[in-house]
Amino acid sequence: MARTLDISGYLIAPDPGARRLSRAVIGTDQNGAAIDLNVVEERPLTIFLNAQEIVTAMTIGDYPAYLALGFLRNQGMLRADDVIKGVDYDEELETVIVRTEGQTTYEDKLKKKTRTSGCAVGTVFGDMMEGLQGVTLPDVQVRTSDLYALAAKINRTPSLYLQAGAIHGTVLCQADRPLVYMEDVGRHNAVDKIAGWMLSERITAADKTLYTTGRLTSEMVIKTAMMGIPVLASRSGFTAWGVEIAQQVGLTLIGRMKGQRFVCLSGEDRLIRDADPSKIADEPDKSGRKGAK
Amino acid sequence: MARTLDISGYLIAPDPGARRLSRAVIGTDQNGAAIDLNVVEERPLTIFLNAQEIVTAMTIGDYPAYLALGFLRNQGMLRADDVIKGVDYDEELETVIVRTEGQTTYEDKLKKKTRTSGCAVGTVFGDMMEGLQGVTLPDVQVRTSDLYALAAKINRTPSLYLQAGAIHGTVLCQADRPLVYMEDVGRHNAVDKIAGWMLSERITAADKTLYTTGRLTSEMVIKTAMMGIPVLASRSGFTAWGVEIAQQVGLTLIGRMKGQRFVCLSGEDRLIRDADPSKIADEPDKSGRKGAK
Repeated sequence: MARTLDISGYLIAPDPGARRLSRAVIGTDQNGAAIDLNVVEERPLTIFLNAQEIVTAMTIGDYPAYLALGFLRNQGMLRADDVIKGVDYDEELETVIVRTEGQTTYEDKLKKKTRTSGCAVGTVFGDMMEGLQGVTLPDVQVRTSDLYALAAKINRTPSLYLQAGAIHGTVLCQADRPLVYMEDVGRHNAVDKIAGWMLSERITAADKTLYTTGRLTSEMVIKTAMMGIPVLASRSGFTAWGVEIAQQVGLTLIGRMKGQRFVCLSGEDRLIRDADPSKIADEPDKSGRKGAK
Repeated sequence: MARTLDISGYLIAPDPGARRLSRAVIGTDQNGAAIDLNVVEERPLTIFLNAQEIVTAMTIGDYPAYLALGFLRNQGMLRADDVIKGVDYDEELETVIVRTEGQTTYEDKLKKKTRTSGCAVGTVFGDMMEGLQGVTLPDVQVRTSDLYALAAKINRTPSLYLQAGAIHGTVLCQADRPLVYMEDVGRHNAVDKIAGWMLSERITAADKTLYTTGRLTSEMVIKTAMMGIPVLASRSGFTAWGVEIAQQVGLTLIGRMKGQRFVCLSGEDRLIRDADPSKIADEPDKSGRKGAK
């Protein structure tokens, strides 16, 4: 049952056939028969901000520069006014170094921090919450017809998920058009890679929607707000704090979007319900996509 | 369709009705109708090792002492020979402090580290890999009849997942009996809480099996090996590196276990195939459980 899919609308689409992103693994099934599996890769990538080692992320390994840039920005370690001189990726050393003009406020703060309570690991979350202060998202209208169109296109886009599984996807969209589809072992990496791409390409966030296969936790909501994107939709569930932060920053939050079903948890007044849900095909039970409940 | 379930075999079972673990949230569905949802909580918990701030974890908030102990042990920050004097949890400050007799090797190393390359965030993964050195798991036999029995019991156990979704579960088991079922927003927290319980109760690991709803990534495999548990099974998928590490440390790794299906990725020679897969009921398409592909 071959299907021809128009993915030409994407600026960046998944490349499930790419070398280095997946590997052949032999397993045995429940009957003891050997089976060939295509399994996603996972490699460490250590991110530096200038001379400062920040974190080692586990990633499939595509777009290391976008991942580093997006991670540092979404954590509030890179500010909007930091001037980026360059990003150096060393495949062999599995490191990526983001270089800025002069030292960042974060590095400065970190130095003080290591002199007092010790290390910066625990401050990461505090920095993220701090970065959220003053964020106000634009009051945009969201057409349910666009949301349904996006979900249908994204779910049918050839991806590592459909081919190998065990990976999350996040897609930057505009109206009914998916633009940039990133996948990664951790759902946060996929979002960070999109943030890095937006930063590099100086992309406007106010007219965009973010779609993710992963759960809507506080961290996912904070990252989306830090990116300035006013709409976040997912086929998966959500946490109470994720919903609370979305309501605080004015993010339109849509969860459990499968077939004709969805739940709007924040920004209900901005939804334009221009699609008739009963006309939307429900997902077959055996659809490739699963997503957490 | 009420079902009476015997969960009396558990030492710790989920308590989906517990105060503080979930919250009522009102959303609107695809037809604009208001719906009442029960949504899992997510709160920050900052873990200290003596005077050293280590990390802020996002957790549902039950068992903070087990989470802290298990996290520190699984990251290799607490060694087997560190003597724990006490664990202090402060609900208001959202902190938990693990106190040891004298300073740990990790704190000592961290001090040197902050004097040289800066901070310890990036070393976390290195420490985990280092902790794995010398780990050899016992060469135990694994009955497929036990694996099928465990999956069936666990999937029918009342849980926050079945009630509210958006949460992962990990279960410590012995033969066909689930013993301790922990749930948390992050799948790693659920594993760490089990590790903390095992450490506190001085539980033998060699005859145990770990079952998780989450994906089998490198970190999940490393944690299981650090705990000394020789068998890890999941209803979800796996990464290439997760499989590779399992093979290196001699862990029996079972993925995509749903209904009668499963894939054995490591330790195939230890499986005793004493169950006839065709006699095992396949999961209905509309089963409550989803799990990543």
